[in-house]
Amino acid sequence: MNSASFDFAPLFPARLPPPVARWTGHVKYDFTGGNNDSDGLPLEGLITATEAVLRREGRTLSTYGLNSGPQGYRALREFLVTKLKADAGIACSADDILITSGSLQALDLVNATLLERGDTVIIEEDCYQGSINRLNRLGVTPVGIPLERDGMRMDALATALDDLKRKGIRPKYIYTIPTVQNPTGTILSVERRQEMLRLSVAHGVPIFEDDCYCDLVWSGERPPALYAMSEHGGAIHIGSFSKSIAPALRVGYIVAPWDVMSRILALKTDAGTGALEQMVLAEYCAANFFKHVPALRRGLRAKLQTLMESLNEHFGTTAEFDEPKGSIFLWVKLPDGVDTMKLYQPALAAGVAINPGPEWSVNKGHSRSRMRMCFASPSHEEIHQGVATLAEICRREFGVLAPGEKS
Amino acid sequence: MNSASFDFAPLFPARLPPPVARWTGHVKYDFTGGNNDSDGLPLEGLITATEAVLRREGRTLSTYGLNSGPQGYRALREFLVTKLKADAGIACSADDILITSGSLQALDLVNATLLERGDTVIIEEDCYQGSINRLNRLGVTPVGIPLERDGMRMDALATALDDLKRKGIRPKYIYTIPTVQNPTGTILSVERRQEMLRLSVAHGVPIFEDDCYCDLVWSGERPPALYAMSEHGGAIHIGSFSKSIAPALRVGYIVAPWDVMSRILALKTDAGTGALEQMVLAEYCAANFFKHVPALRRGLRAKLQTLMESLNEHFGTTAEFDEPKGSIFLWVKLPDGVDTMKLYQPALAAGVAINPGPEWSVNKGHSRSRMRMCFASPSHEEIHQGVATLAEICRREFGVLAPGEKS
Repeated sequence: MNSASFDFAPLFPARLPPPVARWTGHVKYDFTGGNNDSDGLPLEGLITATEAVLRREGRTLSTYGLNSGPQGYRALREFLVTKLKADAGIACSADDILITSGSLQALDLVNATLLERGDTVIIEEDCYQGSINRLNRLGVTPVGIPLERDGMRMDALATALDDLKRKGIRPKYIYTIPTVQNPTGTILSVERRQEMLRLSVAHGVPIFEDDCYCDLVWSGERPPALYAMSEHGGAIHIGSFSKSIAPALRVGYIVAPWDVMSRILALKTDAGTGALEQMVLAEYCAANFFKHVPALRRGLRAKLQTLMESLNEHFGTTAEFDEPKGSIFLWVKLPDGVDTMKLYQPALAAGVAINPGPEWSVNKGHSRSRMRMCFASPSHEEIHQGVATLAEICRREFGVLAPGEKS
Repeated sequence: MNSASFDFAPLFPARLPPPVARWTGHVKYDFTGGNNDSDGLPLEGLITATEAVLRREGRTLSTYGLNSGPQGYRALREFLVTKLKADAGIACSADDILITSGSLQALDLVNATLLERGDTVIIEEDCYQGSINRLNRLGVTPVGIPLERDGMRMDALATALDDLKRKGIRPKYIYTIPTVQNPTGTILSVERRQEMLRLSVAHGVPIFEDDCYCDLVWSGERPPALYAMSEHGGAIHIGSFSKSIAPALRVGYIVAPWDVMSRILALKTDAGTGALEQMVLAEYCAANFFKHVPALRRGLRAKLQTLMESLNEHFGTTAEFDEPKGSIFLWVKLPDGVDTMKLYQPALAAGVAINPGPEWSVNKGHSRSRMRMCFASPSHEEIHQGVATLAEICRREFGVLAPGEKS
């Protein structure tokens, strides 16, 4: 086959995103991506659960949606009803839940249900790159609200909503990652949650709550979900098993009122999320989830400790960060002279991958010298060596001082 | 929570599809959907494969995409390289393959890569409902080409391409299910494949080959894929494990030249297809696929036999059909007086679900008295009883004669 002969280029729509480059493998010190701690994977438990559930009801795999219909494996939705009540305070039924292919499909489905080109939404100023990219691709304008240690600033949210109202713009939603925010690791306080809900109702703007990191709070205690606190039903809640069990499984979920759910279901055109993973998760989690997650968190917290110690050792006071109360990433501020977009390439050339701040923020000035460092996947040794290597690059490329060194 | 309070309706975009109704469970005699024969599921083999692959490399589940990058689990792509060469004659490498969440996600991704509102495509006149619905939703005009026993009519295709060219319209693709067409069960002959490729090149219109039923040819011998026969690279090929192993797994694939693949990858925003299923399929199929599929086919062929006998017994000559050379469905012609869209509801009320022809065709006149009957999932007994019940409904509602009865 002469693949050069047929020219597909004239057939591509104008708005198609640029082509991707070929994948070249993992880097040596990878501080990017929501990969989890492989030592924390409950492998034996998953194997046992798989055999049990397949022996009991494996033949249902021959039917689309098993015997559970289009919203996903019923036993998994029933586990989620229990889990969401126990930790997030959400009172819902299995009929309010849709199982998705990770919380990324949940993001895409909620966006497709609510957004069209030209719309405006409110997000946290520093925000998950995948959410920002989706909005850009959809032609939707994100209005960023600054964050503090207690999460999104409610005075700034009120001002933004008022400003938009004056311009005749009703944002389609307030998107928030309230519980272990990405990338800042902040947790929205209960008081701010109440205020956000008040503003949501006052302006008729629903809350889109992305709770995919909520299981990672070290104390195991989290504020109630906005979805749980809402008295008016104006919230959509999404979550994931990627951070609590394993990301490659690709199992997430949406909790939404039926008038939204019935619209979302019309857009889920993939005939269901992978059934084997749903079955295995339901079987495993019903018996083990609440024992497994604290053990996983202990391992993650130890890696965070290693990361913070390494940063202190190799950067000293030139790397600033707030210790998060739970997370798989650290939002690090380097000296103002460092442009992390320009740090990215030389770091990668030295085998260190980081997330440059401007890719995780709609405020390019504020995020210019910041970076996100994910710590769940690399080993303690890799964290140490990777940070040491990164510090060398920062000294070489940007003249960042070594600890104790004076300018 | 008072879910009636917040009104989402003003926030929905105008072009959103209508909301779905709540799922009410499976019907007694279900002749719809691509569900497979649960007796043909290789359950023990899948359980053994799961344990083996998880013990060997289960900890990679903690990393997005395992160690295989964004195109899917490498061992599964390598199995597909072998399989596609062996049965479809396709010479490709693992880098030419993307694993998708069923062939439905493959359809969505190819459509998103090539189509925009106002475009025109060519399809088979009787065609998979999901493909027709997708085109309608995207605002794309399908031009239907009639089928014969040897598949799409090439004289009609040539005429349609010429007509469109005169109008200044270049269709975005020729979509075909050439090997066990849905719903007709026809197989496009090698001669017609050659002619389709000639027309494709002459008009600069690529071929979009949906081969998701290709494993179901009773003889085990199928014509080479259009993708394999193309000398100019102007073809995109999709397939699935839904029909050969189990539909609930949701694993399909795309084979495409890199200039298309690199665009498709930019649109696959779900961070990969479920890894567990990919791992299990790779492990199982490498050792067992070519032994399993013939056994599955024998069971399916026996059910087709039961369906045809039941139709002959209860409908006699009033139900016409061509015996397919492989399939999980039969395309049945009832007397002209029967409108299958009107048969649907009373049949369902009696516990029999059918696919009315007009939902599986862009030629509403031709398909009005036709229906698709899927036979893989119901038991032999259910096929018998379901057909008997359906015949009664046809007699009662449309005056269809019983076998031997004279008008």
